[in-house]
Amino acid sequence: MNAYDIIFKKRNGGELSREEIEFFVKGVTAGDLPPEQAAAWLMAAFLKGLTKKEMVSLTTAMTHSGEILDLASVPGDKVDKHSTGGVGDGTSLVLAPLLSASGVVVPMMSGRALGHTGGTLDKLEAIPGFRVDLTADEFRRQLSSVGCAMIGQTAQVAPADKKLYALRDVTATVDSVTLIAASIMSKKLAEGTNALVLDVKTGSGAFMQKMKDARALAAAMTAIGNGAGVKTVALITNMDQPLGGVAGNALEIRQAVEVLKGGGPADFCELILTLGAWMLVLVKKARQPGEARKSLEPLLRDGRALEKFRDMVRAQGGDPAVADKPEALLPRARFQGAVPARRAGYVVKMDTRAIGMLVSGLGAGRAKPGDPVDHSVGIEFHKKTGDIVRLGESLATVHAGSREKLEEAQRLYQEAVVLGPRRPPKQPLVYGLIR
Amino acid sequence: MNAYDIIFKKRNGGELSREEIEFFVKGVTAGDLPPEQAAAWLMAAFLKGLTKKEMVSLTTAMTHSGEILDLASVPGDKVDKHSTGGVGDGTSLVLAPLLSASGVVVPMMSGRALGHTGGTLDKLEAIPGFRVDLTADEFRRQLSSVGCAMIGQTAQVAPADKKLYALRDVTATVDSVTLIAASIMSKKLAEGTNALVLDVKTGSGAFMQKMKDARALAAAMTAIGNGAGVKTVALITNMDQPLGGVAGNALEIRQAVEVLKGGGPADFCELILTLGAWMLVLVKKARQPGEARKSLEPLLRDGRALEKFRDMVRAQGGDPAVADKPEALLPRARFQGAVPARRAGYVVKMDTRAIGMLVSGLGAGRAKPGDPVDHSVGIEFHKKTGDIVRLGESLATVHAGSREKLEEAQRLYQEAVVLGPRRPPKQPLVYGLIR
Repeated sequence: MNAYDIIFKKRNGGELSREEIEFFVKGVTAGDLPPEQAAAWLMAAFLKGLTKKEMVSLTTAMTHSGEILDLASVPGDKVDKHSTGGVGDGTSLVLAPLLSASGVVVPMMSGRALGHTGGTLDKLEAIPGFRVDLTADEFRRQLSSVGCAMIGQTAQVAPADKKLYALRDVTATVDSVTLIAASIMSKKLAEGTNALVLDVKTGSGAFMQKMKDARALAAAMTAIGNGAGVKTVALITNMDQPLGGVAGNALEIRQAVEVLKGGGPADFCELILTLGAWMLVLVKKARQPGEARKSLEPLLRDGRALEKFRDMVRAQGGDPAVADKPEALLPRARFQGAVPARRAGYVVKMDTRAIGMLVSGLGAGRAKPGDPVDHSVGIEFHKKTGDIVRLGESLATVHAGSREKLEEAQRLYQEAVVLGPRRPPKQPLVYGLIR
Repeated sequence: MNAYDIIFKKRNGGELSREEIEFFVKGVTAGDLPPEQAAAWLMAAFLKGLTKKEMVSLTTAMTHSGEILDLASVPGDKVDKHSTGGVGDGTSLVLAPLLSASGVVVPMMSGRALGHTGGTLDKLEAIPGFRVDLTADEFRRQLSSVGCAMIGQTAQVAPADKKLYALRDVTATVDSVTLIAASIMSKKLAEGTNALVLDVKTGSGAFMQKMKDARALAAAMTAIGNGAGVKTVALITNMDQPLGGVAGNALEIRQAVEVLKGGGPADFCELILTLGAWMLVLVKKARQPGEARKSLEPLLRDGRALEKFRDMVRAQGGDPAVADKPEALLPRARFQGAVPARRAGYVVKMDTRAIGMLVSGLGAGRAKPGDPVDHSVGIEFHKKTGDIVRLGESLATVHAGSREKLEEAQRLYQEAVVLGPRRPPKQPLVYGLIR
């Protein structure tokens, strides 16, 4: 077996065997394979595509290039949720404690804010003392004792993905649905979960803005997950406007606590229950989503989910009082200011990518990996798409660290929200399911 | 302008500008462009193809990456011929003196034997003292005084081609008609010729075995040549059997002298006159090939072409007596042996690649660049496709350096020539013209 033949076969549209793909991925990981051969293969794979079998082989080979969490010692069914990223999507913060309150184990490995999207790890770090860098042993222990834990990926997870991504980044082979799916799933498969619900966003604030691309990505990821032995479904959901009522790290923690106390914005709660229901169905705790949902709803009302959240925060070094009086503990931005409507009408459109970028620009996110974030800043949304607005009424409240940042964000928010005379047709929150 | 955008554009099937292709080729030549980017571009170009405009831009950029011969100081019209390589194709040895005898200038840069194909430089070096490494000044002086000169390419010609070829060689992007055409033409355009006749071989002994591929290569090369301002036509010719009566270095020099004295095998002479006629037409020394051919024929009969050959050999340090008594001067192999027909019948097929390989195996060619060659060895063909053969009659005479080599070649030749009961349909020598 040699790299040339593997490139040649893919170039001609042939289907590579598992062994051939493993040979390639091992070569990339070890640095034995010259970058020109890796790049030529990536471009051939980009242009010729990969079959379902090849996608599964590629992804599992990438997963096996690094550390894989062994959760065999943790009793119970493990199920995780992964979103392709959006604005205001803090559902993980609620889903982990909610699902563990229902009796399943939720081993969550999350990411950080980048570009216009937020990151669960940054949100959690708004809680004073909260640690996301648990060791594998700490992670396992907490999963056994609490039932949920939320950490970041270690540098040892899927090193092949890092090397391939660095090559894709300079060779114009990033925007391949197949390679994106393999990259995401290679890391999720290293978590040791038995089941996975994917939330694939589409719309102006999504990575995959077009429905067609979102569906293709969802199909590729579910094929890979199921092909690799992890029960996987994907929901295609709406990111044509921000999710929920806020975007920003501390603001989203505060909102999560509201939801865990039985409150919170309707769209945000609806998505949590939809995703959570599928998580239960996948591990056979319910036969169908309706039944699963009915078992989850009381846990939000009666405080059991909140109790799990408190346990998780305590176990990870955070101040558990955040579950009781978040306002007192969470950082608060120095400046707040409303964004008044400059005309009366309906909210017709929200440029969600632009909103995400302005939240990031306030300091809540980062332009490049490693930048520091400001946990206190963000936006509260008072009007969402379809809402009626009076002239001068507040569309949103900006939380900023300086007067200049506040004014810039107010201006940008005005531009990102389109008001018009007619109520736009209502968009669904969930577009479909791919399994 | 940056490499990423150029890869991205080609990947999406866009047409690159001349400036973009120059940027890419300069980056490759200077070593500024990382190999992974060069490789990704090559695979994208391989799979998405290049437009005619892109082919011309790529080729001229490759030509301009190195030394270009300036023949402005040499008076007269310059015309060259280039063949894609075959077995027994010593036409250049005759064409250079023949055409210069007709009053045009022939600046020939030729190659060496490799794999199953022969090389003009190796054939010339069978002549004692003959130098193919003239300096540019010597080359120009000889073209002015004699009218023809035959040399090898210097290492300074088209360095971009060498770098790109090294990348293509490991990234499965060699067998692209477009990239092959650009590679060949980038070197021919560095010669300073005004016109070029291409002899694109097809059949079992050709680089392009299939007619379709040969036509595509011919079309690409003529498009590049004409696009770059060099008048170019291509003839598609038969390499389904060896050309002429011999294959081997000294043997082909001896045959060339025969032709320059008005003799020689019919197919070999026919191809020389066809190619030579187009060379004259291209530089407007004749209106059409028939007229051109009539002006060339007498030069072979009356000794003027032979005289040019003598002048050229003398000018390049060779012994001019080779033009008078080649047998006395050229090296002769120690062993000769016939290959008797094992049945009566017609020659139905000659596996010309196998014949080329066995000639190379005798020592006339080389498996890899730099290997030494034996000028004395080779094969004389007594029977060609369509000829009738009696049982035991000699198909060929092998000239070898050892008894073992002789016997091996005799055995291999038996296998390469198929005899059958029916005369095969006659194949044309020239299949077509592409201009």
